[in-house]
Amino acid sequence: MSAGNVRTLIWDGKALKLIDQRKLPLVTEYMICDSYEKIYSAIKDMVVRGAPAIGVTAAYGIAIAANQYSGKSESDFHDFLKKAIARIESSRPTAVNLFWALKRMQKIISGLQGEKIEDIKRKLVNEAEKMEKQDIEINKMIGENGVQAFRDIFGTKNKFKILTHCNAGALATAGYGTALGVIRSLADKGQIENIVVDETRPYLQGARLTAWELQEEKIPYFIIADNMAAYIMSKNEIDAVVVGADRIASNGDSANKIGTFGVSILAKYFKIPFFVAAPISTIDIDISSGSEIPIEERNGNEIREVMGAKIIPEYMPVRNPSFDFTPYSNITAIITEKAVIKSPFKNNIKKLF
Amino acid sequence: MSAGNVRTLIWDGKALKLIDQRKLPLVTEYMICDSYEKIYSAIKDMVVRGAPAIGVTAAYGIAIAANQYSGKSESDFHDFLKKAIARIESSRPTAVNLFWALKRMQKIISGLQGEKIEDIKRKLVNEAEKMEKQDIEINKMIGENGVQAFRDIFGTKNKFKILTHCNAGALATAGYGTALGVIRSLADKGQIENIVVDETRPYLQGARLTAWELQEEKIPYFIIADNMAAYIMSKNEIDAVVVGADRIASNGDSANKIGTFGVSILAKYFKIPFFVAAPISTIDIDISSGSEIPIEERNGNEIREVMGAKIIPEYMPVRNPSFDFTPYSNITAIITEKAVIKSPFKNNIKKLF
Repeated sequence: MSAGNVRTLIWDGKALKLIDQRKLPLVTEYMICDSYEKIYSAIKDMVVRGAPAIGVTAAYGIAIAANQYSGKSESDFHDFLKKAIARIESSRPTAVNLFWALKRMQKIISGLQGEKIEDIKRKLVNEAEKMEKQDIEINKMIGENGVQAFRDIFGTKNKFKILTHCNAGALATAGYGTALGVIRSLADKGQIENIVVDETRPYLQGARLTAWELQEEKIPYFIIADNMAAYIMSKNEIDAVVVGADRIASNGDSANKIGTFGVSILAKYFKIPFFVAAPISTIDIDISSGSEIPIEERNGNEIREVMGAKIIPEYMPVRNPSFDFTPYSNITAIITEKAVIKSPFKNNIKKLF
Repeated sequence: MSAGNVRTLIWDGKALKLIDQRKLPLVTEYMICDSYEKIYSAIKDMVVRGAPAIGVTAAYGIAIAANQYSGKSESDFHDFLKKAIARIESSRPTAVNLFWALKRMQKIISGLQGEKIEDIKRKLVNEAEKMEKQDIEINKMIGENGVQAFRDIFGTKNKFKILTHCNAGALATAGYGTALGVIRSLADKGQIENIVVDETRPYLQGARLTAWELQEEKIPYFIIADNMAAYIMSKNEIDAVVVGADRIASNGDSANKIGTFGVSILAKYFKIPFFVAAPISTIDIDISSGSEIPIEERNGNEIREVMGAKIIPEYMPVRNPSFDFTPYSNITAIITEKAVIKSPFKNNIKKLF
């Protein structure tokens, strides 16, 4: 099984090439990051997005920083790395995976105090490569478990029409994707009839990124405006919904891109199975339910403008919540790399931890 | 009670001034139509939209055509009017109200055969003015019945947070509006706390037109992307949904702008009353249910572009259904100028006819 045709990030041993996600799908362009400053800019300016993709990018950023150091002083070298970590850390102040990845790199550095500079450089590259590989492996396991989850629910039916929201694809991860990982695994087995892609306002991650990935993979699809999902479902054009998650509470409530909650309600109305695909690391066992999480509301100009075109003037009031929580009662199963979690979610999640 | 601050069309006795709805809300500009050819262009190019607004515009178009005729020959005059009717008829081939209005004008003309040209001119102007006035009167009666419908459902509660989809406002009618007519009537009584406006992709009639009307009326509101409605409902920010309708079947199934069906499902999930506001003329007694009506799918470029900005390339497949049917089982009541129709819809609609 390949990681698919979509390469979010390409490490050539010296530099990290990142596909510029702001320009997709109209322009396919890679940004070459050969300094940690460029990694900082790529994360800050959203050239790369998606929690796992940002984490792996940050890890490579530290490996690149180490290679940038041409001096001989070990203490200078460690100071230089410290500076690079602080810089990359400041690129996106709310990205949990960014901090997680940098901590992991910091731990490696701390464990190598006193070793030769060249050895540390090599080991930091190894660690970043390992993180990239691990993320793809996890996604492939999610994909395989997804195929099994479909078999469990649908029995002998073997061609599926699936709706997805936002982008939980190769572009949001080191590769392969979570929700799109399940779709890629089904496609590998010839089990995809069609994918319906919600455009996902305001950022249009569905229309721009998910559709582009499916196009690259030659998986059949069409794009709809978010408000067309009920109509399409009513015409029996959707067998199942598969979405990603940004954070999952210990009762199964799942946070994902704004609009996911609404899709889950439509799926319930039409009795369409609704799957969440995410790595175990997404589950936050310390949160008992979705209602505990405040939802970030972003700048209103994301609503007032679309890809640079002004729709409405600035004085018009808008709301722009970024995420919503889908209650566990609307979820058929949560597909992780370890297991497919079903109701009762609370008990079954507890068992996994 | 006033018709509100929004003037969709202004008849000055010689020319019809139409607010250019393509440019709202960034530019407020009136197109002066002093020839039937300009009326034709205004309808064709969507300067004016909304079935009742198009109907009244077409009627004025015939009155204007009559005034354009400067000759003395009665038979020439009738030929000239025939040409004008055919021309305006061809402006929007699927607009039922357009044909209805032109037929009504044709009937007046036929009834006046042999009368003096000047008398016919005057009577055609009178008829167009009457149609405009009647449409506004009907909408005001819908508004009043809407206030009563809210009292019936909500009892003593007297401040409402209402969600609406698309534009069923003054801009879609000769004035006042249907769904926005109900909102205007409630606002007149100080009963509006806030209006939540779905932006309504792909054409953004909510963000562009409904929000502009509310701004003009100083009614508090905010705009959301269509996929945010479930989140906003979950936060108890919506007491009721009020939408318009393009066509209502004899069982109560109501066709309206794409996305209305989805909103009705969300409202049902959150146990939020869902009202359709429309004139009796919208009910097509010959259609037994919504499933009989084929849904028009429009050009995909409406999805691929937003206000002239390209989002995705042309080779990407999209779907673009224009309308959907909300089943009667999701509707709390249909507010018309004659009565508030409730379940059982089929029987209660039959009684009205």
